[in-house]
Amino acid sequence: MSSSSSIDQPNVITCKAMVAWEAGKDLVMEEVEVSPPQPQEIRVKVICTSLCRTDITAWESQAIFPRIFGHEASGIVESVGEGVTEFVKGDHVLTVFTGECKTCKHCESKKSNMCQVLGLERRGVMHSDQGTRFSVKGKPVYHYCAVSSFSEYTVVHSGCAVKVSQQAPLEKICLLSCGVAAGLGAAWNVADISKGSIVVIFGLGTVGLAVAQGAKLRGASQIIGVDINPEKYEKVAAKCFGVTDFLNPNEYNEPIQQVIKRISGGGADYSFECIGNTGMVTTALQSCCDGWGLTVTLGVPKTNPEIASHYSAFLSGKTLKGSLFGGWKPKSDLPSLVNKYMNREIQVDEFITHNLPFEDINKAFTLMREGKCLRCVIHMPN
Amino acid sequence: MSSSSSIDQPNVITCKAMVAWEAGKDLVMEEVEVSPPQPQEIRVKVICTSLCRTDITAWESQAIFPRIFGHEASGIVESVGEGVTEFVKGDHVLTVFTGECKTCKHCESKKSNMCQVLGLERRGVMHSDQGTRFSVKGKPVYHYCAVSSFSEYTVVHSGCAVKVSQQAPLEKICLLSCGVAAGLGAAWNVADISKGSIVVIFGLGTVGLAVAQGAKLRGASQIIGVDINPEKYEKVAAKCFGVTDFLNPNEYNEPIQQVIKRISGGGADYSFECIGNTGMVTTALQSCCDGWGLTVTLGVPKTNPEIASHYSAFLSGKTLKGSLFGGWKPKSDLPSLVNKYMNREIQVDEFITHNLPFEDINKAFTLMREGKCLRCVIHMPN
Repeated sequence: MSSSSSIDQPNVITCKAMVAWEAGKDLVMEEVEVSPPQPQEIRVKVICTSLCRTDITAWESQAIFPRIFGHEASGIVESVGEGVTEFVKGDHVLTVFTGECKTCKHCESKKSNMCQVLGLERRGVMHSDQGTRFSVKGKPVYHYCAVSSFSEYTVVHSGCAVKVSQQAPLEKICLLSCGVAAGLGAAWNVADISKGSIVVIFGLGTVGLAVAQGAKLRGASQIIGVDINPEKYEKVAAKCFGVTDFLNPNEYNEPIQQVIKRISGGGADYSFECIGNTGMVTTALQSCCDGWGLTVTLGVPKTNPEIASHYSAFLSGKTLKGSLFGGWKPKSDLPSLVNKYMNREIQVDEFITHNLPFEDINKAFTLMREGKCLRCVIHMPN
Repeated sequence: MSSSSSIDQPNVITCKAMVAWEAGKDLVMEEVEVSPPQPQEIRVKVICTSLCRTDITAWESQAIFPRIFGHEASGIVESVGEGVTEFVKGDHVLTVFTGECKTCKHCESKKSNMCQVLGLERRGVMHSDQGTRFSVKGKPVYHYCAVSSFSEYTVVHSGCAVKVSQQAPLEKICLLSCGVAAGLGAAWNVADISKGSIVVIFGLGTVGLAVAQGAKLRGASQIIGVDINPEKYEKVAAKCFGVTDFLNPNEYNEPIQQVIKRISGGGADYSFECIGNTGMVTTALQSCCDGWGLTVTLGVPKTNPEIASHYSAFLSGKTLKGSLFGGWKPKSDLPSLVNKYMNREIQVDEFITHNLPFEDINKAFTLMREGKCLRCVIHMPN
C-alpha cells in the first residue's frame, strides 16, 4: 500500500484488491485506487474477510463488472470522512451488508432491521452518491453490498460498520458480520425457538449450522439437519452444533418431508431453508406441523426466484417468514453478539475450516463451490 | 317432519332437506331420512343457516354428490347419542365446520385450533365411522364439512357443536359459526392487529368486513378495503365496519399494490386475502411494508391452489400466515364471542342483508354468486 495522505486530509490509497472482471471467472489481483472517504463514510483497512455463499452467487450470476466482492469482514478504521463522529482512526470494526442509519422508520421500530437508507445495496455503488470509491487505471470498479472487503482497503458508509471491542480477535469475529449472526438471529429473533421444540434445517452450511447452534442454545429437543453432502454430518454437524438427526434426501425413496413428519411425530415446530433453493422452501413448509409450524427462509436463490406452495399449507395454520441478517440491527446488536463470543456463550471458531492468504482467494471460491468448507477466512497481508 | 322415535331411543327422522344432486345445479327439496345420532353425536333441529361462499365453491367444483351443503348454522339439540354428556335435548347450539375434541395435541396446545380428530372433513362423511346419516329413498346422501345444515335436522359430532346462551337470537348468531368469527379471529388472534396500524383487506364480503370490524375495534388508523364491486363500499363497507379507504382495482391503471403503498406511506402493516384468489395473496404480500408486514390468507381458492411470491418479499421481512376459522377453538372461544354480541361489543346483524325461507335457498346462491349480498340467513320452517 502506498498512501499520499497529508495529516488532516486523507488521500487516495493505492493497494491490492482481488477484482472480478467477469461472471464466474477467477478473481485477479490488481492495484486499485481507493478514494478518501466521503462525508459520513469511513475507510477501513481490512484485516480478515471470510467468503460467504452470497458472494459466489452474485459473482456467478450478476452483470455488474468489474467488481470487488466480499462483505463478511473485520478491519481497522484508517480514516474518517466529514461529519463522522462515531469512529476514529484505529477503531476495530465489522462491516455489514445491511446498515443502520438509526433515524428511519424501520431503524426506529423495534420490529425491523430493514434500514430504509442503508439497506441491501444491489447496484454496486455507494448509498450516498451512487458512485464508486475504487478504480483500476482510472476505470471505476463496482462495490458489492456497499462493503467490498476483497481489498486491502475499502470505503464504507459509517452506518455500515460496527465498532467492536479491541480485545476481540478480528480473524474470528469477521464471521459475525454475516453468516453466523444470520443463523443465530434466525433462530432467536425471527423464529424465537422455544425450549423442547423440534427444528429442521435444510442446508448445513455456516448459516444452517448457526441456526442449529441457536436452536441448541434455546433447548430444542430435536434438531434435524438435511443436506445432500454426507460429509456435512460426519465432519462437523453433529459434533459441534447440536444436530441430533442427519438426513440425506438422496438416501430415501420417499420425499424427505415425509421422513421428517415421521421422525418428528407430525412435523417440526420450526423449519429453516438455508440453501437458497425456492423449491426447498416448499419442502420446508411441508415439513412443519399444522397449527403453529413456522418456516423461515434465509437463502438467496441462485435460480428460480419464485416461492410456491399449495394454499392448504397455510390454511392448516403454517407461517412463512423471511429473515435478513437474522433480524439483527447491526449497530445495536452486533457488539453484544461479539461479547457473547468473548464470554464463550456462542461458538464461532468451529465454523472456520480453512485459513488462507489473500492471494489464494480463488481457492476459497473452489472449496465453497465444491462443498468442502464451512468458512474460509482470508487473511490480508500486514 | 315425521318422527317414529320412542321416548328413550331416538329413531330415524324424515324431514325436508335441500339436496345438491350435481355440481352447480339448483338444490332440490327432498324428503330425507336422518339417522339417530351415533355414539358421541347429536341430532340438531336446524333453526337458521346462513350461506357462506365456501358452500358455493364446493357445490360448483367438487365431485361428491348427492350432498347436503350448509355449515354456518344454529339449532336446538333434538337428541343425543351414546356417551354424550355435554348436551341435552333443548340446548341451543352453533354447528362448526372444524371441531374441538379437547384431547389431541392441538386441542391441548394454546397455539392451534387444528383439531386432529375433528378437523375439516373433506370426504362428505362423519368423522367417527366414515358413514353418512342422510338418505333419500335408501340412497346415502353425503355431508358437507360434517355439518350439512341445509336440512331441517342434521347429525353432527358433539365436538362439532357449541352450546350457547338460550338468550342469544339463533337467527343472528348463526353468522358466528363461520364467517364473522373467521374474520374477527383473523384480525385478533392470527394477525393480532395493534393500535394505530394500517390494514388492507382484499375482498369485502362478510369475512373481509369482519376483519375490518376487528381492525376497527383494535384501533387501526387506516383500513383500506379492496374490491372490484363498487356496491360493496356504498352499501355497507364504510358505513358500518370501519373501512376508511375503498379501492376498486378496475379504476386504476397501475397495479393496486402500488396505489396501496402510496396511500399507506410504504405499505400496510397487515394485509388480508379474503377472496380465495391465490394470485391476490401475492398482491397482498406486495401491499405490505417491509420489516414487519404480515399477510394473512383466509380464502379457499376456487381455482389455482398454488400461492407464489418472489423470494424478495420474504427477504425484506414479510410474513405469510394462514388462518382457519380465525384461530378460534370453537368450544373454548365461541360462547364468549356470542356474549360479546349480546353485550353489543361486536356487530353481527349488519352483515345480514337478506332473510329467506328455506325453500328459497337457491335464491341465496344466486345473490351470493352475483355479489349482491353479504349474508343471506335461511330460516327453517317451524
